[in-house]
Amino acid sequence: MNFSARQKKLAVVMRQAGLDALLVTHLPNVRYLCGFSGSAGVVLVQVGERSHKTTFYTDGRYTQQAHEEVQNAKIVVSKKAALAEATAGVIQAKIRLLGFEADQLAFATYKQLAGILGRRTKLKATSGLVEQLRMIKDADEISQIRASVLLAASLFQTALSVAKPGVAETVVAGELELQARRAGAEKMSFDTIVAAGARSALPHGRASAHPIPAAGFIIMDYGVILAGYCSDMTRTVHTGPVSRAHRRMYDAVREAQLASIAAVKPGVESGAVDHAGREILKKAGYDSFFTHSTGHGVGIEVHEPPRLARGQTQKLAPGMVITIEPGIYIPDDGGVRIEDMVLVTESGNEVLTPTTKDLITL
Amino acid sequence: MNFSARQKKLAVVMRQAGLDALLVTHLPNVRYLCGFSGSAGVVLVQVGERSHKTTFYTDGRYTQQAHEEVQNAKIVVSKKAALAEATAGVIQAKIRLLGFEADQLAFATYKQLAGILGRRTKLKATSGLVEQLRMIKDADEISQIRASVLLAASLFQTALSVAKPGVAETVVAGELELQARRAGAEKMSFDTIVAAGARSALPHGRASAHPIPAAGFIIMDYGVILAGYCSDMTRTVHTGPVSRAHRRMYDAVREAQLASIAAVKPGVESGAVDHAGREILKKAGYDSFFTHSTGHGVGIEVHEPPRLARGQTQKLAPGMVITIEPGIYIPDDGGVRIEDMVLVTESGNEVLTPTTKDLITL
Repeated sequence: MNFSARQKKLAVVMRQAGLDALLVTHLPNVRYLCGFSGSAGVVLVQVGERSHKTTFYTDGRYTQQAHEEVQNAKIVVSKKAALAEATAGVIQAKIRLLGFEADQLAFATYKQLAGILGRRTKLKATSGLVEQLRMIKDADEISQIRASVLLAASLFQTALSVAKPGVAETVVAGELELQARRAGAEKMSFDTIVAAGARSALPHGRASAHPIPAAGFIIMDYGVILAGYCSDMTRTVHTGPVSRAHRRMYDAVREAQLASIAAVKPGVESGAVDHAGREILKKAGYDSFFTHSTGHGVGIEVHEPPRLARGQTQKLAPGMVITIEPGIYIPDDGGVRIEDMVLVTESGNEVLTPTTKDLITL
Repeated sequence: MNFSARQKKLAVVMRQAGLDALLVTHLPNVRYLCGFSGSAGVVLVQVGERSHKTTFYTDGRYTQQAHEEVQNAKIVVSKKAALAEATAGVIQAKIRLLGFEADQLAFATYKQLAGILGRRTKLKATSGLVEQLRMIKDADEISQIRASVLLAASLFQTALSVAKPGVAETVVAGELELQARRAGAEKMSFDTIVAAGARSALPHGRASAHPIPAAGFIIMDYGVILAGYCSDMTRTVHTGPVSRAHRRMYDAVREAQLASIAAVKPGVESGAVDHAGREILKKAGYDSFFTHSTGHGVGIEVHEPPRLARGQTQKLAPGMVITIEPGIYIPDDGGVRIEDMVLVTESGNEVLTPTTKDLITL
């Protein structure tokens, strides 16, 4: 990973914001800037007119890990908490204007920080400075994301071989997760969703102890983390005979998903991608059952900018990796969602998820 | 679960703090107060001199779940985000002094809230008001925690049957997690630790793709969430012949763990429990290798108050559920940790984890 290039880009953004330094406390941003994957670490980036200096702070539990993982940063292992040591570093460096990550830093932590720094250092709330860089994936990241997507896709066969009427949703999730482990995944990128029958009408139907019923949809929405990068995919299958109504639902979602994918290209507003699929569902009479947004960025976090939702004006750009995942949910009946990961390319897009979208019946 | 009693106790604490209302945004606290287990919900508790009023806010994705789960609170399902709706509720109720959870609320969210409320409502940072109540588990909670502990303990046999030289740590973790699913666990309470050979010297050795070596310790640290309550246990086993040095390490940790458990009773400071085990390791010459604290509370969250660490003055009280988990970690050699969950009783304590502490060799 080219941490040096990332830090240079951040330094440019920081200079534009008039900052002397930025305190990076959000762990996915820490990982992005220097490679540390542990759960206690802080990065301080100081900028001069033409140079920048990056320091990574952690505590004694992570001495070995820090030296193995952290690149392009001075490593400081503290007997105190990482943030306390970083604060001391700010004072020592006589930083005047220090940015902090206001969307993540807790109010109480901010107050402590402000109390210790006093008048010497002015704190400035910043929002998304690193996230904005993370939206555009570099070549190394795209390669990692491809591997993570393919691993997730390979697990769909496991899910199909286990899922049948009478089997608990959690057992399908558990088998899929065991295969993920065997294939080298660090962990799942979020709580695996297996929602069968009427439960498929819940957009957030985390796998439960309910058995799969004899007839109905099963939504399976899952992803893995591989070498720090997330994947996220959804397929909907069906047990028992497929009614005309269910076939119509499925076909509408598939058509909507393809329409949104077709809209993905550089320069297009993310809201327009949402609109393309939503229009299809509207024409089919399902728009009131599409109760969430169309997608989100994926990378070090499974949900990261950009958002693909109604009215969003963020323009797509090459290197963005997003999900396209329309769905419809009819209470007490069932739901359908189809989700791919899609890379924005110079000329349009590339669908990364290789899995069929034909309706599979079990 | 007796949500009414919990809310009454909170109202007493709020009156003592002079608050007119408390905005509860930390999800484990939301769950504790009204039963909601979803990922987007806010509770507003208003207090009068002798009465209190609890309102739960969520958005449209959780309509059904809110009505199934939420008790002892008025339910408001909003088209906006839950917090925005709750803020409107604060304005409408003309609340003058509103507490918020400063340890969790992000600075940016605080600023938005303050901007909307303006001069009408004064915001007051609070810390641990609900967590303080959650420290003392009620009978329903103790019963749930017992079930969660027993489920976790039952998985140790699975781990023993899979773990052997050459098998990847992640495969041991994966088999254990699959069994957890089969037994009805919602999920694991944290990333399963399986750390074998030299990796057992890492206090945070999340299961990796490394195979278990022919000889050495294997630390297995895991827990499940069952019906909303966490468990957490650690056992250390050994592959190959056990050297005298390793036997000595193991015995020292076991003795330290028993000493700390023996110190657990009402009225004792949590720091004294830490001290009891640490002294044993000191006498055996291992104190510099015991690099973390002795334990923590467990309940809706796997790490919650109290902390059992050097110098902590929190007094133990009946109904607290804590871990006792000393360990020693010798770089490039290996580590040992033994962890039980322990209930503080009126007369002393009860060890909830039933698993043997004899050194098992595989």
